[in-house]
Amino acid sequence: MANPLVSIIMGSTSDLPIMEKAAKRLDAMEIPFEMLALSAHRTPEEVSDYAKNAKSRGIKVIIAGAGMAAHLCGFIAAQTSIPVIGVPINASLDGIDALLAIVQMPPGIPVATVGINAAENAAILAVQMMATNDASLYEKLTAHKEGLKQKIVKANADLKEITYKFKTN
Amino acid sequence: MANPLVSIIMGSTSDLPIMEKAAKRLDAMEIPFEMLALSAHRTPEEVSDYAKNAKSRGIKVIIAGAGMAAHLCGFIAAQTSIPVIGVPINASLDGIDALLAIVQMPPGIPVATVGINAAENAAILAVQMMATNDASLYEKLTAHKEGLKQKIVKANADLKEITYKFKTN
Amino acid sequence: MANPLVSIIMGSTSDLPIMEKAAKRLDAMEIPFEMLALSAHRTPEEVSDYAKNAKSRGIKVIIAGAGMAAHLCGFIAAQTSIPVIGVPINASLDGIDALLAIVQMPPGIPVATVGINAAENAAILAVQMMATNDASLYEKLTAHKEGLKQKIVKANADLKEITYKFKTN
Amino acid sequence: MANPLVSIIMGSTSDLPIMEKAAKRLDAMEIPFEMLALSAHRTPEEVSDYAKNAKSRGIKVIIAGAGMAAHLCGFIAAQTSIPVIGVPINASLDGIDALLAIVQMPPGIPVATVGINAAENAAILAVQMMATNDASLYEKLTAHKEGLKQKIVKANADLKEITYKFKTN
Amino acid sequence: MANPLVSIIMGSTSDLPIMEKAAKRLDAMEIPFEMLALSAHRTPEEVSDYAKNAKSRGIKVIIAGAGMAAHLCGFIAAQTSIPVIGVPINASLDGIDALLAIVQMPPGIPVATVGINAAENAAILAVQMMATNDASLYEKLTAHKEGLKQKIVKANADLKEITYKFKTN
Amino acid sequence: MANPLVSIIMGSTSDLPIMEKAAKRLDAMEIPFEMLALSAHRTPEEVSDYAKNAKSRGIKVIIAGAGMAAHLCGFIAAQTSIPVIGVPINASLDGIDALLAIVQMPPGIPVATVGINAAENAAILAVQMMATNDASLYEKLTAHKEGLKQKIVKANADLKEITYKFKTN
Amino acid sequence: MANPLVSIIMGSTSDLPIMEKAAKRLDAMEIPFEMLALSAHRTPEEVSDYAKNAKSRGIKVIIAGAGMAAHLCGFIAAQTSIPVIGVPINASLDGIDALLAIVQMPPGIPVATVGINAAENAAILAVQMMATNDASLYEKLTAHKEGLKQKIVKANADLKEITYKFKTN
Amino acid sequence: MANPLVSIIMGSTSDLPIMEKAAKRLDAMEIPFEMLALSAHRTPEEVSDYAKNAKSRGIKVIIAGAGMAAHLCGFIAAQTSIPVIGVPINASLDGIDALLAIVQMPPGIPVATVGINAAENAAILAVQMMATNDASLYEKLTAHKEGLKQKIVKANADLKEITYKFKTN
Repeated sequence: MANPLVSIIMGSTSDLPIMEKAAKRLDAMEIPFEMLALSAHRTPEEVSDYAKNAKSRGIKVIIAGAGMAAHLCGFIAAQTSIPVIGVPINASLDGIDALLAIVQMPPGIPVATVGINAAENAAILAVQMMATNDASLYEKLTAHKEGLKQKIVKANADLKEITYKFKTN
Repeated sequence: MANPLVSIIMGSTSDLPIMEKAAKRLDAMEIPFEMLALSAHRTPEEVSDYAKNAKSRGIKVIIAGAGMAAHLCGFIAAQTSIPVIGVPINASLDGIDALLAIVQMPPGIPVATVGINAAENAAILAVQMMATNDASLYEKLTAHKEGLKQKIVKANADLKEITYKFKTN
Repeated sequence: MANPLVSIIMGSTSDLPIMEKAAKRLDAMEIPFEMLALSAHRTPEEVSDYAKNAKSRGIKVIIAGAGMAAHLCGFIAAQTSIPVIGVPINASLDGIDALLAIVQMPPGIPVATVGINAAENAAILAVQMMATNDASLYEKLTAHKEGLKQKIVKANADLKEITYKFKTN
Repeated sequence: MANPLVSIIMGSTSDLPIMEKAAKRLDAMEIPFEMLALSAHRTPEEVSDYAKNAKSRGIKVIIAGAGMAAHLCGFIAAQTSIPVIGVPINASLDGIDALLAIVQMPPGIPVATVGINAAENAAILAVQMMATNDASLYEKLTAHKEGLKQKIVKANADLKEITYKFKTN
Repeated sequence: MANPLVSIIMGSTSDLPIMEKAAKRLDAMEIPFEMLALSAHRTPEEVSDYAKNAKSRGIKVIIAGAGMAAHLCGFIAAQTSIPVIGVPINASLDGIDALLAIVQMPPGIPVATVGINAAENAAILAVQMMATNDASLYEKLTAHKEGLKQKIVKANADLKEITYKFKTN
Repeated sequence: MANPLVSIIMGSTSDLPIMEKAAKRLDAMEIPFEMLALSAHRTPEEVSDYAKNAKSRGIKVIIAGAGMAAHLCGFIAAQTSIPVIGVPINASLDGIDALLAIVQMPPGIPVATVGINAAENAAILAVQMMATNDASLYEKLTAHKEGLKQKIVKANADLKEITYKFKTN
Repeated sequence: MANPLVSIIMGSTSDLPIMEKAAKRLDAMEIPFEMLALSAHRTPEEVSDYAKNAKSRGIKVIIAGAGMAAHLCGFIAAQTSIPVIGVPINASLDGIDALLAIVQMPPGIPVATVGINAAENAAILAVQMMATNDASLYEKLTAHKEGLKQKIVKANADLKEITYKFKTN
Repeated sequence: MANPLVSIIMGSTSDLPIMEKAAKRLDAMEIPFEMLALSAHRTPEEVSDYAKNAKSRGIKVIIAGAGMAAHLCGFIAAQTSIPVIGVPINASLDGIDALLAIVQMPPGIPVATVGINAAENAAILAVQMMATNDASLYEKLTAHKEGLKQKIVKANADLKEITYKFKTN
């Protein structure tokens, strides 16, 4: 099998229900990826090893999800120049703590933050990054967007079916 | 049937349980309306087409509901001068994200924002706008307000029935 | 002079620097208006008298600005069916208290809320409401929007003048 | 029966599960009270009538509960000098909107605000106010406080019963 | 001189610019009062002594101002049944920390909370409490409210003087 | 049995499900401890007695949990120089009120605050404090950390077992 | 000159002091870029034209900054699959409104959000994205990170110079 | 000179005005300490080296201050079992982002968090920790607390000097 191009990293398997949305989207877009459990607070050395070796292993983009005082994304970003996409996970305070702990990075070390629990968007963003140099990937993204549009078209048709006395079509 | 005077717009049918409260209120007040699914992010061209043609189609007021980074209302308001009423939908963060994303519009492009999930109030506000030039509509609003008052009168009577040792009537 | 079509209401003259942005916009759009100081907490009877008589005096839209526990807008809306546009004024807590106290109205009594301190947008929204039955007003709004667009065109031109070594035009 | 000394006011019977905690506390302390449904937005005239007549009817303290854009407490306080105790009810946003809409009153018109949903504390505060001139009421409050203390003493005893290997008593 | 009826308590003289608004209002209403520096965290024993003796010293109402993790008000309320009015002082986080630390008291121990920095309202509320059994005090409050009303009347007159081309009076 | 070295204090047994996580961690680390119910608002004298005697009783660290306007931790810290670890308990507002009421202490009286509901971390922090002078305790902490690491290693192995078409290992 | 690879887009020149930090960083890293003023609300058609043509013009990454109800970033992202980096600008509410309006995008349309006002980080993130296929760019990033490290080394040396009586080196 | 017992760590010298309050308090209490600049994001390896060697160098307590997405404290805590005191620094969002990013640590890795900018309290807490096994340190803390009390006594005396017509002493 091809080497992974995207890493999906989470602090524990309890985050899997959120993070697997990224896995499924990458899988549907036929992007080779890997899934790893790493913790900034419990396995800091493994995180360092991972971050320092990711580039030479061929990883193009890193997706990392974390909740509460979410340090994982920033800690990886500190140790590689591969773009890191951060997924704030709602584990407390509606996810506001994780959002702020991921997005408010100091000058020099950005984390590309997506919405709370938005792991699928993280996958799409990862593909967008790789598509900057890959026309066929760009086409996949365009096709995916067209699919989203068709859902709205379908929703519109469904709404037309609903009847009220003064509703028109 | 008469042409619609009010458009009720939502991003997907998942918002229907909230937004149909607007439909039911307009229906009860005998205002012709339409319901459409349009998405600022998934069908931006359709939103533009809708917004640009709404005036010539006879639409008087637009009600748009959206959650999270709720851009739909502002994006419509940017492309028509018909008043747009924004309904922040609680899809995350108790709806605070949607409220701020709808109400904090820049100078020149207002959105008339109602409370979180308050689609019924959006419908009443739409009727209030149309009633500025329609005395019979204004009477309907006055009658509706009288009905609200009677609910309080009824509640008051109900409270009188509750007995405690030291409660008086 | 023509009767006023829009009322601009504030709790004290300390809100004038914010609320006069509404006055100036209405003046520029040649809409007859009035300015009043009324307080839900200090002159509740006067507010009631005002609200009950506004319709018969020919007022089409009411703009009310208030800060902190901002009850003025809702209290007027409770006593008339003329649409009330609420302007949350930043007098404490960055204006979040006023925003919530204005926008989170109960079912039946909406207030059309604009952004914090956004009195100019309140005026534009008022004109939009009146323009639902007035083609010449609608044209004024369209012209105003075109002016806003020209500011961006101008900004774009200004940005082109800025030079960096690797910047292109 | 004796005239009521305290009014408990709510906007609808949906607030009764919260507000009856005030009723039960007053009842237990043998304070004559009344319960009324009044709405700042739906029955503003009835609120005014109530507020203006409360003093002559012998009311000493008013307890008012409201949620969302909670104007009821402030609107009553504006029309009487009887102390008004405000109970923010959690109907949205965890009750933060109601708390701010009640507590952030402008200079001159205070509302004595208690915690979110804290109707029982409102009743105790009402008794404290009346006890400033009533020694027997003050004794009841002292006795109630002693009861609260005994609950902690009981809790302490319960904790002693819990055994862990390294826990001591 | 008469014994004090109201205590104004603050944690340090740095809170004096806020808390003296209470002093000035009580002074204007001719209520004997005292001002004390007491700290829940630095002089807990003195707070206890104060709280336990206040009743026998003739104190009717206690006003306490505190910022940040504002424990002073609740700590006094825990040790007396005299009503305690809490003034959240904005020393950090716009005063939200102090507001929550004062208002969110557990069942049994209320603190009558006023707005952030609203020491003048604390004084008025104290007088309202004492006026429940003092008709002349009640008249002073009514007179004060009339004065507030006259300020709005004056503001209204001032607004009439402002001229715009399309403004009417 | 040995004298307790750590006190775990809570305001009522309703906090036991949170606070017993501290008890279990101390028990697992073989630290003698005690559990007490004390309330800043209901048994202030008992809190004072406890705080003043804790040092002479051999207590090294105090863990106190409280919710809402959480004064217990600070009130203990005011009356002893033993380090106090505060556990904000989520009883309202997602625990933000308790967090701010515990952490925002004034200069001179710190409370070592841990995360919302994080009683187990409070126990670990207590052991860390005692381990500053106890090498065997330090070893226990190191061993515990190693255990946490092994959970991540296990999670990593679990993730490897999950198969998608484009997932690699 | 080379075609631009990165677009820096802002709603008006008032955002230039923030957004030029992105320009300066790109310039320092020798990346050809362009700067444009475009507004989702004032020039929606121009935004559409821009977004649809950016790919064919050779743009690799788009950086867009916006404040308040910040729709610009999402609106561009809706109309291209080029990655869009969003910079929330603090124009109100400390920038929280802009942050939420940018980051909380619906499924399918991500915006890579950086910290409030963090335009320099947006530029670095853009270069990271392009460096996924450009080894020399990756080296520039590594060098930049080394420079950041040297600032800390320098700071460390500065701290050593500060003397207190009990400070050691 | 004696080996340092406490480390004060900051991310850059821009945090020195806050963090030197810790230095001055330790100096006044005659505790040997060191000051270091270390950054979780810019010098992660140096942070790891520091954290792993601190115990063997004789460090008893670590004080770390950080702002925004404040990872420094947690990252150190992950790599040592020495207690880490975190000081949230107000660099954005009033310091709420830093507070949450420091305090909301996952199970197993606590950070003893003090108030926003509260570096002096961090120093006192560090001394409290060391005083658990050092009676003379405990006496210093008791003396310091007595000094704080005297400030309140002085404030009380100052308040007595202020005269109003109805103020008593």
